[in-house]
Amino acid sequence: MSLLKIGVIPGDGVGPEVTEVGLGILEKVAKRDGLVYELHPFDLGGERFLRTGEVLPQADQDRLRACDVILLGAVGHPGVPPGVLEKGILLKLRFDFHQYINLRPVRLFPGAPCPVTGKGPDDIDMVVVRENNEDLYVGAGGFTYKGTPEEVAIQTSINTRPGVERCIRYAFDAARGRAARGAFKGLSEADKAGGYTRQVTLVAKTNVLTFAHDLWMRAFNEVAADYPDVKPGYMHVDACCMRMVTNPEWFDVIVTTNMFGDIITDLGAVLQGGMGLAASGNLNPTKTAPSMFEPVHGSAPDIAGKGIANPLAAILSTAMMLDHVGATPSADRIRRAVARVLAAGAPKTPDLGGKASTVEVGNAVRDAL
Amino acid sequence: MSLLKIGVIPGDGVGPEVTEVGLGILEKVAKRDGLVYELHPFDLGGERFLRTGEVLPQADQDRLRACDVILLGAVGHPGVPPGVLEKGILLKLRFDFHQYINLRPVRLFPGAPCPVTGKGPDDIDMVVVRENNEDLYVGAGGFTYKGTPEEVAIQTSINTRPGVERCIRYAFDAARGRAARGAFKGLSEADKAGGYTRQVTLVAKTNVLTFAHDLWMRAFNEVAADYPDVKPGYMHVDACCMRMVTNPEWFDVIVTTNMFGDIITDLGAVLQGGMGLAASGNLNPTKTAPSMFEPVHGSAPDIAGKGIANPLAAILSTAMMLDHVGATPSADRIRRAVARVLAAGAPKTPDLGGKASTVEVGNAVRDAL
Ligand SMILES: CC(C)[C@H](C(=O)O)[C@@H](O)C(=O)O
Ligand SMILES: CC(C)[C@H](C(=O)O)[C@@H](O)C(=O)O
Repeated sequence: MSLLKIGVIPGDGVGPEVTEVGLGILEKVAKRDGLVYELHPFDLGGERFLRTGEVLPQADQDRLRACDVILLGAVGHPGVPPGVLEKGILLKLRFDFHQYINLRPVRLFPGAPCPVTGKGPDDIDMVVVRENNEDLYVGAGGFTYKGTPEEVAIQTSINTRPGVERCIRYAFDAARGRAARGAFKGLSEADKAGGYTRQVTLVAKTNVLTFAHDLWMRAFNEVAADYPDVKPGYMHVDACCMRMVTNPEWFDVIVTTNMFGDIITDLGAVLQGGMGLAASGNLNPTKTAPSMFEPVHGSAPDIAGKGIANPLAAILSTAMMLDHVGATPSADRIRRAVARVLAAGAPKTPDLGGKASTVEVGNAVRDAL
Repeated sequence: MSLLKIGVIPGDGVGPEVTEVGLGILEKVAKRDGLVYELHPFDLGGERFLRTGEVLPQADQDRLRACDVILLGAVGHPGVPPGVLEKGILLKLRFDFHQYINLRPVRLFPGAPCPVTGKGPDDIDMVVVRENNEDLYVGAGGFTYKGTPEEVAIQTSINTRPGVERCIRYAFDAARGRAARGAFKGLSEADKAGGYTRQVTLVAKTNVLTFAHDLWMRAFNEVAADYPDVKPGYMHVDACCMRMVTNPEWFDVIVTTNMFGDIITDLGAVLQGGMGLAASGNLNPTKTAPSMFEPVHGSAPDIAGKGIANPLAAILSTAMMLDHVGATPSADRIRRAVARVLAAGAPKTPDLGGKASTVEVGNAVRDAL
């Protein structure tokens, strides 16, 4: 494998703490598997903004673009108004680098605590394919009579057929990819007899968003026709939130809009044992620009600096990065090590009910590699 | 009390089954408490649409407007395309009758099954004040290049200062109303020392919806200043979905947009034991047009006609109707009867793990009155 250039944005709050641990795991697995890489650190986030007023200077963005992949810790700072860092860094990179898929696996590792009564690792193993470049996230909107009693504020969801279709296609391909692990357990005998092995559920709100989600529904039906081995399904977003809690075993691959994906993946994080375990990839599958991997959790200012943030989400995001660059055996090795530590029941950070530090958990994963 | 004119829309699927039981409870409590009312039935829903092509003729709407309140079972039919009945009946009435508040209590009765480990009735007692006349629900949007590979579909959230402000004010007033039951348990000692007795949390996405939710945030802060006894809080919608599951005891009153309210109240229904227990009121607090009360569940075509739908949501919605017309003692009587039946552990419909029929549960509540 050729030299991998990794841009690293540790960011704010617990971001640097968990990123450092993630990089330690990467170092060990790379040595073992003969992966060669170099790290390109970036000082971006709330601290820099407050110090210099800069959010994401063009020069930084150009250097980031020259990387193969990006590892991000977290951006977000209590001293910075809402939206500045999110829109200025995180969403800007997602959009400018055409990271049009936000891939968020929701899988309960044995040993991780699931707050839902009676559900276990066999029930919780889905992946959410969140559209990542459109919808309400485009920033389209405005005010009239701002600041007066007559003020009106609008915000517009923009959905394009190509943008929606590539996302749906990605989801169906992902379902096929999962077929290697066997048929989806939620399929009925009749489904299997009909030739289905996996399932994709579109989550939207067709009965209310009759423009945006009419486009989604038509695109979904047309793409589904190309995948006779994948069972297509539909669920309203409100029902989905309910069913993710009461019947997580109903889900295999979920494909959804940017906004709804944001919402349901936080719920997904709960199912898999909390934010401390939720990894994600902002993918540009065409590789015309770098993809970016980040834990779903934010900068968590309340626990920043205490050394107790759970590093597993950052570690699992590093594994997703390795998947993306084709080093799946190394990625699997990391996931197995995480699984071993969780199954052992210790060490655990406080979010999982333990007393261990970020570094102790990182070391345990390292030792389990 | 003067004669109450109640419009009744049993609707589709299980709607008629649960509405009939709700009316039976109303009859008994009215007799006992000396309430006089007359019922005005309306044949609206999927069956009528499929039979006649009519959704909501003007004459029906005029007759509905002449009622004091409306009881709705459910509208929704597998044979009707998505949106037709929802937009043609449910949303049309919510909008045309200026039912600008969708009030959805989330309260776990002792004996009702909560799927979240370690949480009980003491932890789950909140109310969601959902804005009900604006946001993505207004139906603003359109297509260009429809049906082609270049298609674009947009959908716009419209938010007005008066619409948002009246909703937020309603939430703060609701919080004050809850002070009669004692201070909110989730307040810290410092909060109480600071004079707070109750709490309102705004749930939005200010860091992404920087137009629509900037208006919401400003309106919220300004209204909050008028309520020094109510602690104002803010949570992003994604974090809220997580926290409703992991920390429901953090919430007292939630105020949110139409779309986010739709989503989080399905999650709220789960917390309180499922859709079979979730009641709601579409309120026009100015009483310039009738308010409408309905179970949060839909027409449930899969169990329609079997006589096993849980009638408790419809019964509790009837109680909310009585609250609205000032008959709170009667409403409380109904809620106590429901509480008694749930605490007894039987009879229960299948959704709660029992084997009883809709009518049996209704009779039990009737006997407990
Ligand atoms: C920080 C925020 C802009 C972001 C989002 O809404 O996408 C976050 O919630 C996420 O899910 O990655
Ligand atoms: C049926 C649908 C239009 C409705 C909504 O989205 O408001 C329902 O989900 C609800 O919550 O009452």
